[in-house]
Amino acid sequence: MTETIHTTSTEQGRREQELTERVVASFENTPDERLKKVMQSLTKHLHAFVREVRLTEEEWTTAIEFLTAVGHITDDRRQEFILLSDVLGASMQTILVNNPADGNATEATVFGPFFLEDAPEIPLGGDIASGATGQPAWVEGTVLDTDGKPIPNARVEVWEADEDGFYDVQYGDDRVAGRAHLFTDQDGGFRFWGLTPTPYPIPHDGPVGAMLAATNRSPVRAAHLHFMVTAPAHRTLVTHIFVEGDPQLAIGDSVFGVQDSLIKTFEEQPAGTPTPDGRDLGERQWARTRFDIVLAPATA
Amino acid sequence: MTETIHTTSTEQGRREQELTERVVASFENTPDERLKKVMQSLTKHLHAFVREVRLTEEEWTTAIEFLTAVGHITDDRRQEFILLSDVLGASMQTILVNNPADGNATEATVFGPFFLEDAPEIPLGGDIASGATGQPAWVEGTVLDTDGKPIPNARVEVWEADEDGFYDVQYGDDRVAGRAHLFTDQDGGFRFWGLTPTPYPIPHDGPVGAMLAATNRSPVRAAHLHFMVTAPAHRTLVTHIFVEGDPQLAIGDSVFGVQDSLIKTFEEQPAGTPTPDGRDLGERQWARTRFDIVLAPATA
Repeated sequence: MTETIHTTSTEQGRREQELTERVVASFENTPDERLKKVMQSLTKHLHAFVREVRLTEEEWTTAIEFLTAVGHITDDRRQEFILLSDVLGASMQTILVNNPADGNATEATVFGPFFLEDAPEIPLGGDIASGATGQPAWVEGTVLDTDGKPIPNARVEVWEADEDGFYDVQYGDDRVAGRAHLFTDQDGGFRFWGLTPTPYPIPHDGPVGAMLAATNRSPVRAAHLHFMVTAPAHRTLVTHIFVEGDPQLAIGDSVFGVQDSLIKTFEEQPAGTPTPDGRDLGERQWARTRFDIVLAPATA
Repeated sequence: MTETIHTTSTEQGRREQELTERVVASFENTPDERLKKVMQSLTKHLHAFVREVRLTEEEWTTAIEFLTAVGHITDDRRQEFILLSDVLGASMQTILVNNPADGNATEATVFGPFFLEDAPEIPLGGDIASGATGQPAWVEGTVLDTDGKPIPNARVEVWEADEDGFYDVQYGDDRVAGRAHLFTDQDGGFRFWGLTPTPYPIPHDGPVGAMLAATNRSPVRAAHLHFMVTAPAHRTLVTHIFVEGDPQLAIGDSVFGVQDSLIKTFEEQPAGTPTPDGRDLGERQWARTRFDIVLAPATA
């Protein structure tokens, strides 16, 4: 990012720069050094934005009205500010900043709002669906450290939407479906039955949805299956896998969670193909995929 | 503003930069060119902030909670997002951007939330107080164009808080006090009785007040008298005058509205000093000040 010429005249530029410096200086007596740094940086970038686009007073008013609408639709069940952060890529940028690249460690992505602490435990090879509808998908892989050593007994949390695009918690009837946790075996291996993920839109009937519509952007999230993997002495990994061939990958994930390394082939298996664990799926098609996971070491 | 080194490694920097570019590109099909420019610039500056401060996930959560609280305290009578914009200097920066320096034209400042369209008209030399309490102040000046030519019949709107720091509209009893408009005479002159302005705090019992407290900042606005001056073929001027010697000027105006050129001497007049218009103020002290106003030409 290079410096932008904001000024229309030398005197005008001086006045604008002086104001920014005055606001930055107003935070100089902040007792907490970290808060001071954050507020001063926020001020500089906010002012640089206003100056760069030459924000009109009418646009300023529109921005105030937009934020007010975001605030008013937000309640205990709807968090429009998180949606806003998501669709501006600020959530994903925060994830990147806090999960620095570490050799071949698996990349992180957004956490999303649908994780639950107390998902049921399943055995290796168990089924997370518990009634969630969709095409069965066999998911297997190995959890390794960055030296390639298997990590036994790593906790693998998985959760996903059903084929209608809804997580269990969105039904409001206390069902627990499409989520579970399991532990890797002595060789770091894990395997379970999930569902082939399908794309679904983020809530787009509010001001964030209106912004997406005005900018010709899709509200749809690329199909994905959530993972959170924890093991002692390793950095917790929050990530997804995506489905190769999902048309939404080309259109763009509405919250920018996709990394190329996280796109996996879900191999379609014709009805009647023998399953890895002998499960009888009758006349149903199913899919299988592999996701090998590398955990970075915990930082001191 | 120079480029900041955000990266902790080449690969990490590449990932962060690539994400920003992906979000910028997502706005590429925005039909409205101006909206596209604004959203792309916002994205770049927002991401630069997150990267520069290495925003933690905990801080991100705090930011979401802060914005949620700002949204929830905002209603028809309380606009906490405007307060937030004000105390970050974004409102004043927007004013600066939209009122470019033009020779000796009088500088603009923030509009504030207390202007009313239908303030009463007073004659030259009239009193705006209408019962608002405070020390009487004789205010006079001339409205000129940038060539020094007087502007007759310019409309001068003035409004201010009373000595308790409240505008009429804050009492909720329909009083109209401390506000009026008048017109300049053939020589561009105006004069009226106002009140010597006194400092007052912006509303600081909400999340914005908590932010000011956490950063050791004063919520107090330097004492000021509002002006809005309009004349055909000239740029409308929205500004204040401030009071030389007001201790808040050294502490800092909470919304950054002060410009040196707007600080005026309010000369204290001992009780009994003859008034310019022969008004009998009895045993009261009064003050007098002069504010000559230069309007920029209207832009095409």
